[in-house]
Amino acid sequence: MKEAEVKALLVDPMNNSPVILLKDRNSTKAMPIWIGEAEAMSIALELQGQTFPRPLSHDLMKELLEALGGTLERVVISNLKEGTFYATLYVRTPDGEVKEIDARPSDSVALALRTRSPIYIADEVFEQSAIESPFAEEERFHEFVDRELRLSEFRKRAQSS
Amino acid sequence: MKEAEVKALLVDPMNNSPVILLKDRNSTKAMPIWIGEAEAMSIALELQGQTFPRPLSHDLMKELLEALGGTLERVVISNLKEGTFYATLYVRTPDGEVKEIDARPSDSVALALRTRSPIYIADEVFEQSAIESPFAEEERFHEFVDRELRLSEFRKRAQSS
Repeated sequence: MKEAEVKALLVDPMNNSPVILLKDRNSTKAMPIWIGEAEAMSIALELQGQTFPRPLSHDLMKELLEALGGTLERVVISNLKEGTFYATLYVRTPDGEVKEIDARPSDSVALALRTRSPIYIADEVFEQSAIESPFAEEERFHEFVDRELRLSEFRKRAQSS
Repeated sequence: MKEAEVKALLVDPMNNSPVILLKDRNSTKAMPIWIGEAEAMSIALELQGQTFPRPLSHDLMKELLEALGGTLERVVISNLKEGTFYATLYVRTPDGEVKEIDARPSDSVALALRTRSPIYIADEVFEQSAIESPFAEEERFHEFVDRELRLSEFRKRAQSS
């Protein structure tokens, strides 16, 4: 099991899809995961320490968890099947029981960042998809340079929702 | 307080933004709320009785709620300030306590549809924004005709997330 941190949020120029780069804390390797735009914006805002004027889906998820006395103990990117990553949330109930909940990595990471919960990657998943020194891969990705533009668009879109 | 149902999911041609139309169950009036695209897709899938191959954010929210023994008793669209609608989730904890959680109407509706919880609108909010017989307003909206296209795009985008 690797403990991971969100190293970067990038855009894959091939399909304009956001990518999160999860770096192994104990090596120079990192693993890219392609995610949806709404989840990317939610992760970006949290990484930048910004809050949206209204609670985003993952802010609400955190509020629900807290209102019910649950704790997100950890998130594990547990599987990779046919190009799709699977994650598991380990949620401790007020009774001390730990429940495993199936989730997408994007939701898992967006929530883990908000609850300051550790993110792990199963070794076999990491070995299949990790890349050495991601910043040698710069030509495959470009920085999330249009982030400000996208954030303002996103703000506009989510404004009255 | 009006009890509402999700009558339609439309696209506002002015800005291409999705709109949900919440109809008062006891009159012919309805209230439009502009929402984000991800939330619209999540609502559309649930209205069509479809499930996405992987849990969407609101599916995960429902799972979290259930894992922690919580019940979404009702959702209230409670306020409208400067063009922004506010909603409150009333969540019953396993101890029987009811907690009020601030949320966007889009997340509230997407979750309420999944938990079969009633949706209410505060009278003063409804009076400010309800429109008579929404389907006389057809020229202002066009049907969510490109839904299939958008859904397939969305599927593609959310695929490995």
